[in-house]
Parts: sequence; C-alpha cells; structure tokens
Amino acid sequence: MTNPFEIRRLGPCLIPSPLKLRAGPGARHFVDDGERVLCNIEVMEGEEEIHSSERGVLEKAGPRENIFFPPGRVHAAIVTCGGLCPGLNDVVRSIVMTLYEQYGVTNVSGVRYGYRGLLPDAPWSLMKLDPTVVAHIHRAGGTILGTARGGGERTKDIVDTLQRQGIDVLFTIGGDGTQRGAALIADEIQARGLPIAVVGVPKTIDNDLSFVEKSFGFETAVSEALRAVDGAHTEAADSVNGVGLVKVMGRDSGFIAAHTALASNDVDFVLIPEVPFDIEGEGGFLWHLEARVRDSGHAMVLVAEGAGQSYVEMEGYDAGGNKKLGDIGVYLRKAIEKHFAERGLEISMKYIDPSYMVRSLPACASDSIYCARLGANAVHAAMAGRTACLVGRVNNRLVHVPIGGASARRNRVDPDGPLWRDVVSDTGQPALLKAASAP
Amino acid sequence: MTNPFEIRRLGPCLIPSPLKLRAGPGARHFVDDGERVLCNIEVMEGEEEIHSSERGVLEKAGPRENIFFPPGRVHAAIVTCGGLCPGLNDVVRSIVMTLYEQYGVTNVSGVRYGYRGLLPDAPWSLMKLDPTVVAHIHRAGGTILGTARGGGERTKDIVDTLQRQGIDVLFTIGGDGTQRGAALIADEIQARGLPIAVVGVPKTIDNDLSFVEKSFGFETAVSEALRAVDGAHTEAADSVNGVGLVKVMGRDSGFIAAHTALASNDVDFVLIPEVPFDIEGEGGFLWHLEARVRDSGHAMVLVAEGAGQSYVEMEGYDAGGNKKLGDIGVYLRKAIEKHFAERGLEISMKYIDPSYMVRSLPACASDSIYCARLGANAVHAAMAGRTACLVGRVNNRLVHVPIGGASARRNRVDPDGPLWRDVVSDTGQPALLKAASAP
Amino acid sequence: MTNPFEIRRLGPCLIPSPLKLRAGPGARHFVDDGERVLCNIEVMEGEEEIHSSERGVLEKAGPRENIFFPPGRVHAAIVTCGGLCPGLNDVVRSIVMTLYEQYGVTNVSGVRYGYRGLLPDAPWSLMKLDPTVVAHIHRAGGTILGTARGGGERTKDIVDTLQRQGIDVLFTIGGDGTQRGAALIADEIQARGLPIAVVGVPKTIDNDLSFVEKSFGFETAVSEALRAVDGAHTEAADSVNGVGLVKVMGRDSGFIAAHTALASNDVDFVLIPEVPFDIEGEGGFLWHLEARVRDSGHAMVLVAEGAGQSYVEMEGYDAGGNKKLGDIGVYLRKAIEKHFAERGLEISMKYIDPSYMVRSLPACASDSIYCARLGANAVHAAMAGRTACLVGRVNNRLVHVPIGGASARRNRVDPDGPLWRDVVSDTGQPALLKAASAP
Amino acid sequence: MTNPFEIRRLGPCLIPSPLKLRAGPGARHFVDDGERVLCNIEVMEGEEEIHSSERGVLEKAGPRENIFFPPGRVHAAIVTCGGLCPGLNDVVRSIVMTLYEQYGVTNVSGVRYGYRGLLPDAPWSLMKLDPTVVAHIHRAGGTILGTARGGGERTKDIVDTLQRQGIDVLFTIGGDGTQRGAALIADEIQARGLPIAVVGVPKTIDNDLSFVEKSFGFETAVSEALRAVDGAHTEAADSVNGVGLVKVMGRDSGFIAAHTALASNDVDFVLIPEVPFDIEGEGGFLWHLEARVRDSGHAMVLVAEGAGQSYVEMEGYDAGGNKKLGDIGVYLRKAIEKHFAERGLEISMKYIDPSYMVRSLPACASDSIYCARLGANAVHAAMAGRTACLVGRVNNRLVHVPIGGASARRNRVDPDGPLWRDVVSDTGQPALLKAASAP
Repeated sequence: MTNPFEIRRLGPCLIPSPLKLRAGPGARHFVDDGERVLCNIEVMEGEEEIHSSERGVLEKAGPRENIFFPPGRVHAAIVTCGGLCPGLNDVVRSIVMTLYEQYGVTNVSGVRYGYRGLLPDAPWSLMKLDPTVVAHIHRAGGTILGTARGGGERTKDIVDTLQRQGIDVLFTIGGDGTQRGAALIADEIQARGLPIAVVGVPKTIDNDLSFVEKSFGFETAVSEALRAVDGAHTEAADSVNGVGLVKVMGRDSGFIAAHTALASNDVDFVLIPEVPFDIEGEGGFLWHLEARVRDSGHAMVLVAEGAGQSYVEMEGYDAGGNKKLGDIGVYLRKAIEKHFAERGLEISMKYIDPSYMVRSLPACASDSIYCARLGANAVHAAMAGRTACLVGRVNNRLVHVPIGGASARRNRVDPDGPLWRDVVSDTGQPALLKAASAP
Repeated sequence: MTNPFEIRRLGPCLIPSPLKLRAGPGARHFVDDGERVLCNIEVMEGEEEIHSSERGVLEKAGPRENIFFPPGRVHAAIVTCGGLCPGLNDVVRSIVMTLYEQYGVTNVSGVRYGYRGLLPDAPWSLMKLDPTVVAHIHRAGGTILGTARGGGERTKDIVDTLQRQGIDVLFTIGGDGTQRGAALIADEIQARGLPIAVVGVPKTIDNDLSFVEKSFGFETAVSEALRAVDGAHTEAADSVNGVGLVKVMGRDSGFIAAHTALASNDVDFVLIPEVPFDIEGEGGFLWHLEARVRDSGHAMVLVAEGAGQSYVEMEGYDAGGNKKLGDIGVYLRKAIEKHFAERGLEISMKYIDPSYMVRSLPACASDSIYCARLGANAVHAAMAGRTACLVGRVNNRLVHVPIGGASARRNRVDPDGPLWRDVVSDTGQPALLKAASAP
Repeated sequence: MTNPFEIRRLGPCLIPSPLKLRAGPGARHFVDDGERVLCNIEVMEGEEEIHSSERGVLEKAGPRENIFFPPGRVHAAIVTCGGLCPGLNDVVRSIVMTLYEQYGVTNVSGVRYGYRGLLPDAPWSLMKLDPTVVAHIHRAGGTILGTARGGGERTKDIVDTLQRQGIDVLFTIGGDGTQRGAALIADEIQARGLPIAVVGVPKTIDNDLSFVEKSFGFETAVSEALRAVDGAHTEAADSVNGVGLVKVMGRDSGFIAAHTALASNDVDFVLIPEVPFDIEGEGGFLWHLEARVRDSGHAMVLVAEGAGQSYVEMEGYDAGGNKKLGDIGVYLRKAIEKHFAERGLEISMKYIDPSYMVRSLPACASDSIYCARLGANAVHAAMAGRTACLVGRVNNRLVHVPIGGASARRNRVDPDGPLWRDVVSDTGQPALLKAASAP
Repeated sequence: MTNPFEIRRLGPCLIPSPLKLRAGPGARHFVDDGERVLCNIEVMEGEEEIHSSERGVLEKAGPRENIFFPPGRVHAAIVTCGGLCPGLNDVVRSIVMTLYEQYGVTNVSGVRYGYRGLLPDAPWSLMKLDPTVVAHIHRAGGTILGTARGGGERTKDIVDTLQRQGIDVLFTIGGDGTQRGAALIADEIQARGLPIAVVGVPKTIDNDLSFVEKSFGFETAVSEALRAVDGAHTEAADSVNGVGLVKVMGRDSGFIAAHTALASNDVDFVLIPEVPFDIEGEGGFLWHLEARVRDSGHAMVLVAEGAGQSYVEMEGYDAGGNKKLGDIGVYLRKAIEKHFAERGLEISMKYIDPSYMVRSLPACASDSIYCARLGANAVHAAMAGRTACLVGRVNNRLVHVPIGGASARRNRVDPDGPLWRDVVSDTGQPALLKAASAP
C-alpha cells in the first residue's frame, strides 16, 4: 500500500549537512529519513491491534544528516501572501537566520507583495535578506516583504521568474489559496524537470487547515479578540439593557470565536459557521437574546464572520480566490436593534469589529516560538530536497505534509466534539437556536 | 472686584477635621482657606507688573482644618453619568475610601445608571458602598454603578429624591451635560435652602473641558488609539497602495487625535474639528492623499469623530443633550474608495474605529493615580461645605472651579498653538487642506 | 497484559449524567468509557506493525454518560498547594463553575493555605465557593484559597478531616509533592473503604511533569521571562562591555530557559540543569563569555535556577519536600565580575531575577483557556468516580493518568532532542561548555 | 533687577527660520523672544498684588521666527549619559527628526557611550544619524547611542573634540551630573569664544530635578514598579503571614515610591529618603509591621533605594559622581526575617527589585509624546542660539532653564505636602515610624 502522505523529493541526499559540525560528541541531533509519526491515535479499548500503518503515518520534520542542496550555491526566496497574520515576520526571520547561521546559505531574497512580486511584469525587485535586515523585525507586526492576494494562478510566469532569477528554493508563507498555488508551481517545476524546491509554511489565522493542529498567530488573535469582548461586555454590563456584539475572524470555522468565549467567561451567545441558527422566530437567536436581556439586564454576543451566511449571502470571489462574505456583524446589529425597537425595549447596543487590529499585531511569546520552529523546519525540509510539502503539526509534533493533503479539506469545529461542548456549557447558551417553526 | 471664580459655600466650617489626628507633630497637611492659584500665568517681558488678581485666581483644592459636615451623620451619594471612560471606578473607589478611611463617613450610596437612578420612578434602589465593595474595582473598566445618558433635566424630581433619601453630599462624575445638570440641582437645593453639597468630578475623554488641563482617562485613551493606529498603519504599509484610516473620539476637539499622532510617528494626515478642510478639489484632502500614496506606496489617516461635520451633518440631539454627529469615518472611507476607483488606482483600504474598546478600558497607572487624587479632593471640598463646584486642574495644580465657569466654554486645540504646530511638523501634512477653488 | 495506566474507580457509574439534558438531538457529547489515546506514537518506516497496545494507552478525559456520584448530595473541596503559578484561579473557577452549572453540585468548599488547611489543628475554616465568589477571580494572579508548602505527609489527619467534613471529592491542584501526597491520601481512603474521589490537576511552572505535555501557566511564565531578558539585554547592549544575566525558574529542567531563549533571539548563552558545564578553564563558560564580550561588546546569559548546582550545592529540603537549591544566579554574577576584574576588563553587569513577578501573574489567554479545560475535565473525572488520577495532556489530548505514573519521573530537556538543538542553533553557543582539562 | 533665570545666547538671531514656510496664512506658530512664564504662582487671598517679577519668570520654549545658526551648515551632535531611562530613544529620534525635517539640518552625529565618546582617546567614532536610522528606535528601550557614566569632568578634552569635529550644537541628554558637566563644557566654550550651543534635556527617572515638573520616563517607571508591587502583594496575600517587599528607584527622593503606592492601593508601608524612620524599637517600622502581619495575615512594604541610608551607609562615589548607596532592600529583608524569627512567627518573605526591568523599557504613550516635545524644543532652543540651558517644564509649560538653576537643588517629596499626605492616607501607615526611645 502506498502512503498517501509520501513526500516528493528532488533527488537523493548526498551532501553532508553542515549542521553536523555543530553537534557535540555523542549528540544525535538529526532526524532519520525513516522517522514517522502516527496520525490517527485514538482507539477503543480492546481494539488496539489495528495495524499502525492504517492509522496514517507522516514524515517527521527536522534536520537530516545528509542534504540535497550544496549550501554555498543555493539561492533561496521567501514570499508572504494573503492577509496579515501575527508571526509573519517571525517566520521570515527564522528562515533567513536558519539558512545563514546553520547552513551557510547567504543568497536569500524576499519577494515583495505576494505572488505578484514573482510575475514578470512586477514593478518591484527582489529584496536582499540577511541577518542584519531581519534581526529585529519580529518586534513589529505585519511582514517586511509586504503582501497581496492573487497572482498565484499565473503558474508558468512564476516558474519563468524562478528560472530567470536562479532561485533554487521557494518558501511560500500563506493560506489555503497560497498553498494550492504552490502545489501548481511545484507541478510546473516537475514538468520542466527543474531541481527547485517549494516548501510551504501554512498561515491561517482561522486555525482551519488540516494537519495543522495549531496555526501560528492563533493565540495572539485570541488574546486580542478577548480584549474586544472585554470592552463590549463592560459597555453592555454598565448600561441599561446593554447588548454587546463582537465579530471575530473565522470564514469557515469558529475556532477563534470558540476559544475567545472560553477565555472570556462573559459571552452569552457564540455563533459560528459550523452550527446553523435561526435569527427570528420563537426559539431562535433573537428570542433567546431578548429573554437573556430581560432576565439579567444585558447580554454579550460573539459572532464569527462566516456564521449565518444564509442571511447575508454575496456573489463572487476576492482576488485570493475566497468566496466573498456578507457582513453578518452589521446584519445582526441591525436585526437586534429592530427586534428590540419593535418590542418597545430601549437597549444600548455596542458593536466592535476588531479584525484589523488583530491581524497586524506582533506575535505573542508562544506564537513567536512556534514561528521560529516552523521556519527552521521549513529550511531543513527544503535543504533535504523535499518539495510540494508543508510543515504541519499533528499530535503535537512537527511533520511534513504533502500540500495536496493539507489543503484538501479544512478543519472545522465539531458540533459534537469537546470544544463546542465546553463552549455551550460555559456560555449557557441553548444547544440549538432554532425557531419552533421556521419563520 | 468680585472674583468670578468664587466658590459657593453651604456655611461656616466649625467642625475640626478628623484628618488632624493623623498628622505628625509639626506637619502642615491642611490647605488654608485663603490659598489661591494664579490662572493666566503667561506674560511678556517688561509687562510683569500686571496685578495678579487680573490673572484670575482659583481656590486651591485640598483638606481643610475645619469642615462643615459632622462626619458621623453624613450620607454621601455618588453618581456616574454619560459614556464610559477609563478611570470611573478609580474615582468611585477613591471617594468611598477617602470618606470611610479619612473622615469616618460610613453611610455611602451608589446611584445606579446615572441621573435616572435618582428619579422617583427609578426601578433601581441605591447601592451600598464600602471599602470591601470597592477594594478591587479599579482593576476593571467601566463603572460598577452603571451609567446612562439623560435624566438630569428633571431637577426637582432629583432634589426630591435627595431629600427623601436624606442625602447630604452628591458627587456627580460626568461630562459637560452632567455638570450643567449638577449646577441646576445645586440651584434648586439653594432655592429650597437645603444644606446639601453638590461636587463634580469632570469626565471628558475628549479632554476638552475648561479648567481641566488633563481629563482623567485621556492617557489611557491615547494609548489604545495608538494601538489602532499601529494596526492600521501596519496593514497599509504592507499592502500595495495601502490606506489606513482610524477614527478616534473627539466630538468638538482634536486632542486625542493630536496626541495619538505625536505618539505614533506613522500618521500622514490628522483631521480635527478645529481645523476645517476640503475633501475634494486640487489642494484638498483627497488630492494630497493621492500624492502621498503615489509617492510612498501607502498612507495613514487619523480623523477625530467631530471633524468635517459639514459633510455629514445630522439633525437632533442624543439623550445626554449632545448634538448628533454624522459618521465622518465611514464617509471618508467611501470618499477615498470612490476617489481612487475613479482614478483607476487599486488601493487596499483598512478602516478601524476603536471607540468602544477605548472607553471601556481600565485606567493606566498615571490615570489611576490622577483619579485617586481627584476623588480624594472632591471629598475634601464637599466636607468643607463647598458646593456647585468641580475639582479641576490648572497649571498643574488641583483647584476648585465653579461649575458654571467650567462648562461655559470648551477647550480646543489652538490651530495657532504649539500642539497643532508639532502635529503639522511631525506628520508633514500641509498646514492647509483647502481646494484651490472650492469644488 | 494489564495496562499500567489503568485508572482506579470508586465503583460502577449508574447515575445518568445531568449533562445529557443539555445536548441537542443527535449530539454525541459524551466520552465512551472505552476511549483511549495512544501514548508512544513515533515509529520507523517499515516497523509500523507494532501492536498498538505496546505503545501504551491512556484513558481519554471528558464527561461520561453515566456518573458515580449523585450530584445533589456531593460535597466537593478544592485545595491549592505549593508555590504560586499563573492560572491557579482559573482552575479553581473552572472547577466551581463546572460543578455548579453543569452538574448542579452546589456544596463546594475551598481549603485555605494548602494541605495545612485540612489538618485538624488548622486555624482556618473551609471557604464557601460558588459562581458569584469565583466569577472574576481569573483576572487576578495568585489563588483566592491561599497556598502553602507541606502538610500533605499527615495523611491520616487529612482523611480524618475529609470524613468529618463529609467531603466526597477532593481536587488537589499542585506539583509533584502535592500529587504524591494526593496518592497517599487516596490510598488511605481506599484502605478505609471510603467512597471519596481524589483527582489532581498537575501544576508545574517548570513544565517538567510526565504525561503533561504543557503545564498550565508555562506560556505566561515564558512571556514574563522574556520581558526580563529584554530588559537585561537592552541594559547590556547599551553599555560598554555590558553583561546581562537573567535567572529563570527551572529546578530540574530547562524548559522555561529554552523557550525564553527561542522567543528572545538575543540570548548568547543558556545554562540548564540537563546540560553540565564548566565555569572556569579554557573552553569553559567564562572563557567563551569573555570571547563573546571582546568580540561584540556585550553578552546575554540566561540561567535556569537548577543549573550548575555542583557549584552551589546546599543541604536539606524545604517544607514541600524539594531539595534546597543554591543560588546559581548570584554565584555566576560574582564569578563573572571576578573573572573580568582579574583580566582588567571593566564590564557593566546587570542581573535580573524575575521569579516572583512571574509566578504571581494572571494567566495569559491561552493559559486561561487551558486551565478552564483542565478544571472542567477534572470534574468530569471525579463525578465519574475516577480517583488517584490526574488530568494530563499527551499528544495534544486530555487524558487521565494514574498519579503514580505521572510523578514517577520528570520531563527533561533532551540534550540530543530538537528543542535543545534549536536553542544551540539560535544562540550560537558552543554545544559544550567544558574546560579542556577540568580546572 | 537682573533675572536669575536669564538664558545665555550665542548672538543675535538674524536668519529667518525655515519653519516659517510651513505655516499657513495668519498662523502664529512662533514664540516671541519676550514670552515668559510665571514661576511661583501660588498666592494668598488678598495678597495678589505682589509684582509678577518677584514670582520668577522663565523664558518660554518654542520655535523662534529668526534663528542664530544657518541650518545648511550646522553639525549637530547628541550624547546620552548615565543610566538607562525609558524614552531616551524617543528624545534622540525627536531631535534628529526636528533637525532634518523642520530645519533642514542633515549633518547630525550620535556620540557613543556618553561623554566618554567625546574624549580624544575614545575607541568609538561618531555615528551618523538620519531619519531612516531613527525611524523606529522609539519602539525599543535603551538608547541606540549607548551610554556610560563619567567622562564629563574632562571638559577641555571634550571641547577639543567638538572643535576638531566641527560640532556647532551639542545636545546632552542626562541627569544631574551630566548637566553639571554640560555647564562646564559651555563655560569652556565661552572662554574660548566659540559659537557652539550646548542644550540639555534633563533625564531623571527619579523625577527629582528642579524646574522639571515631570521627568520623561517617570510614568513608564511607575507602571512597571506597579507590576512588581502587584506581584509581591499577590505572593504575600496568598501565603500564611506573607510579607512582600519591593525596592524601587529613588536615590534622593521618593516620587516613584509615592506614586506607585497611590496607583497600587495594596501597599501598607512606604519608606522614602525624605522621611526618616527607625527600624527597631517600639513604634518603629518592624514593630508596626509585626502588628500589621498579626492583624491581617500579610503586609506589603515599598522602599525607595535611597531610604534609610543611615542603616547601610557606604563610602565613595560611582563613576558618574553619585554617592554610593547601601542596599536598603537587602538590609530590610534580613532585618524583617530576623525580627520575625526571633518572635517565633513563621513568615513567607517575597522580595522584588525590578530596577533593571524598569530602566530598559520602551516609553509608554504619554512619555513618548512628552519626549517628542522635549526633543523638538531642545532643537528650537539651540537653533535660536540658546546655550547653557535645559528644556524644563514648570506649571505645565515647557521653558528654558539655565543649567545652573536646574541642578542647584533637587525636587523632594515634601513630608508636609499633598503628595505625602495622600500616601499616608492611602496606605494607612503611621505618620511617624519612630521608636518611643531610639533603640
């Protein structure tokens, strides 16, 4: 049986890793090429005899004793794509530092403004990166490379640029769409028979990529979302019939909303894409909200941007290939105001949408450490000739994941799982916000 | 010549202050009733002979050796009105602590939800306050008393409640409208010949009250506004033709905007109520903004909510008696998007309105200290029988100000003064954003 | 083969869980009693056939459909022991909230000042806990219950108290020593044939408990340690021959030091208990430090409190049964000063020991969420009659661990593993700090 | 009568300021040379007739319409001396930005490591400063120039360097000793008849310079000191007989200690240099501390480093000319431990000395703004030919102060004034900590 998680390699690793020289006597710092991590590790008592290979095995990330590329001749490039996310600069910094300090790769370029910077008609030239340039960038949010959506669909143009610039390794830091683009670029490279590695670092502030147990920037995002909830809750609780409403990121998944609610303890209702709800009607959201306001004098609502899209559906896609979302936050604000106005109950409505303050933050300490390790392991993978792969995290271990495998499906909050169970318990919200008969 | 800043007194101070007992031998902790602070202290060389009294003299705040109220029999009440502001809980805490610990006043009540809580038909009863209740409230934002707009116009009803509840001292924490209400309450009290003191602690996150050099919560507000600017600037600077736009508080004055711009160093344009500007036309705001974007690839705009109201004017007043403002932030966002769309320049627009996150914050350390001193001095003033007055700060000293004097006019950013000069210099924005010929 | 990770149960679970009522139709929120998590999940390619049971299987944590205790009659007690750690109040809060809101257990007591509060001669009575008491305690550091070392060795006295007070469930929040005490208490309970559950929540700011992949408070600790490193590094870098030295927690393990170094990027030398080093002699620590100072004008050293104990060894144990440590921070400071003085090189030495500021912090958002889930799952375990167990985390999943298994050995930083590899790479420090010939 | 606050000028201002061109029509952005600020502004009622000139008048700071130096030919240099202080980089940045952007002065040098960098035998060359170099330095603590104590006593050598390097303007950012050095340098310049301006920006984290109402970095320092107090208090309050002890900066004055106590509300005893106290004996500090611990189970002590020096006196002076201080923090810790040990009362002692974490912080928003304005006004003063002066703040206005005037005496906490009164009230500590009969 072939392993669906097999990682594509550019060729045999025949060059001794320069890292070898740093290790002490007796040290075993290298990862053996045969090391694997089990994927599905939950079993029922008495059924433990299942063959491990059926559980899925992923290649372990880390430095190899022998590598594919001769460090002295490598030209590496880094590109950041899509929206901002806390930690981008940390990942860029770590890739540059690992290349320079550990492998002696000194020819490192930054691509400006996403895949657009790799198009032949790009107005921007590559940006020279070295340890001096990146030394302190992790203290600032954003990305020193700049970022943009789109451009990745022009696969042939991009590979032309890689060839023209003599780039041997391309690190693609970005989300779903970015990594799908990276897979196509790797395919085009393979079709042309070129020895160019494409290694991705998955970015998704929504935390919804498969094989990426925790996405970088997620903890920072939750911390800041929590500040917004604190603000809205204070406003609501100190007003007569105050209603706080905060919209957080989460196009297809409610992870930020769910974790923020758990951290806050002040949220009464959480609305996420994975759990449908009715807004109107007896037993629906507004019906329960009114009960809560009448009962305790205020209420706090947290909504993920992708929730309730049936109410605000839009046509079309943005430049990054993402379906356009209607603004559920503004819709809910108006629906709430209308509902209470009709019932003659004067409320004090406070709405906060902190998204842009969240995305642009510098990474918190734990995200910063995580980014440092993702970047270092992306370099280890590329130097060892891995391509068309991502650095992921599964069962608390860094692994290599084929790009196709990771972007095939998204992580979702399981409405029957422990996370949502804890959210429902903590908030005290009804398990279902459904109208008795749809209105 | 009568002093326009004379403070009204309920009667002679015949009771020795209980504070006396705490002072050490030789200590002089009391403020003499005759102590005054000069108001206008700027002079031209050679003209120093001007009589000091013409400069305006204000009564110095602080504890008096003899007081008006017998502490053991005083019933004090505290009310917080209008919008939230960092430090409200600090002021409440300080008033309660000073009353209890220093004067031995143990009968202290909190009024719920602003002046509404003093109306005969209020559904809320008074809230008992003591050191245990208020010990840790300064760690949280908002106000434990709750707050609301309006109600202060029902002067007679409120004085009825004061009489019925046996309240001797009323502390009114709130802005302009609140203090105008407090002045009318004090007048009604005087008309009825009652020995009830009304002492205000001025609240204005916009920092625009006369005789209040720095309003409490202002530094906290600037800190948070700065975070929003950092976020928007990072978003703008990392995008192709990014434009960041942040709207901050400031109904009639641009103090928060001006200070935030000085703290940030990343702002290119600051728009405030005191300095008119044209949006369209050659030499107008959009014209300069476009030049800036074309020149450096991004731009950062900071606007006070009260700026450019001629473009968004609205009818009517809110429950607190404040003129309704049109939303200049949203207006500008659309105007900018339309302008660049017409010119075929694709921009990346990021708009942040952090207001509700600002107002609900706990006070930063320096605001917290300032609140502690405002609250303590409000108690000293009331116990010494002062009424119809505020605790203000002039020339870096705490003083008593007659309510009428303080709310007569507002502080403004002087377009010819040093603050605006420094802002124009720091941002590099044109001194005038006026169209060559009005469009 | 018996499972060494079998969890002891008080008896069969015959009472339907009240949680059932909250779940929606079709929901599967309960954990089946047979669910297990594989423990050792790393394999070599081609060797996947190993029987899963040899990998170790741990019982999955979570709510059960049927429980052991009748909620209406349960008296639960919570005790916090040992040193402070960020998140203690979060765990206490979560236990109380889950008991009340989910199980309807309203008889909850807090034990004051650790196990001492359970001794017959304790001067403190139990503290009544309910949702109102704990609602906001997570905003403050420390523990509202108070804490102390020692007392746990008086097992019989403690079980006497449990019987006298009618306590059915005891939650023990504390470290190694605390949980060893808890195991003995559970044994005494079993010997007396009592139906009392003892469930632990492991606390170790050092992050060194087995089967506890990440200990609560650890991320908060690293964040604050990072601030100390930033401070010392700034001081060092801005002085002529500045040497910064920071001592962080870590009695037996260098996890905090290692993670802080990774997050900081400014550290030149990390000294941890797991990696021995020579201070003097050619090739030793001071020799390399001098080279670094002469080379770059400053240096930054980070030392875990348990490092280099051979230099500062002490006799005896503290009240909590921990071996007393000599102060390696102060020792190093003096050794460094002496070394450079002898060489006539004037340095500027800045030493920071931030320990007490770290331990007393409120938990950061991600620690706060983690604590909420630990507390909730401890309640689920106890209500289902589990005893003599901890709530641990293995392979990113919450599990039940027999107390004996968890405290049998400690986690260490593996000098041959990826964490230490990344630290050595990042800092650029020599893999070995050993004198050519021991001095 | 000559004004003792007259500012020395290098010569007449004959060159039109380039700032003029920025101002709009009708704008009055310049400060007239005759503008003064009254110094002593407190009066007694009925005594207002005192001639204003007897109150002291200080020259107002700000840009002049005509300046002394031709901007195109000026070489400016900046030096930072003494210990670190939050905001140093902000001041450096503001000076560079104002010189470049407003005056067109592009020849700006940074002196490395304090006055030592101006000695002929300095191993460091001057550092070129421009807007690109300083753009983001305010985000980091410390000073990019580096700093050191001493060197300022070699006046002739320093002026030799100024001449050799062709420096026209020297900005000295530093404390007492630094500014005394600056005065001597200015005197030597005058003796040689050179047209070189020396303008100081006073730095004193202790907040104790005359004519500097608030020193930059002070608010940041109090914020961080507050964190240390929070930590120690949490530790103390959660332990059996916990005693928290925090030592903060304040060599000769207790401003940081006093403000921190007011912000904290958790401090029981504040010990400052201005208020002598006995440690032993009935009625002394330990006697009261014991009473507090026995009464409430814990206590929190805050001590300024310069307090109680009679107990720990040392000989000699440091390189900066400051008298060496004994370590009162460590002395008190031992005294407290000994005292309770003798009485057989087991306590839990937690001591924090956060000094190095305080000094190296980036400035908070309000300090950052203040630094920006100090730096800008220092440039305005120098360009207008002022020399031997500082930019101070009196009665909430920026002014020029002759260096001699400012360093003649220090600000102290007045034991009979309102600040100490509020501290004694807030803490509830006895006004005197004196033994009945000195022990």
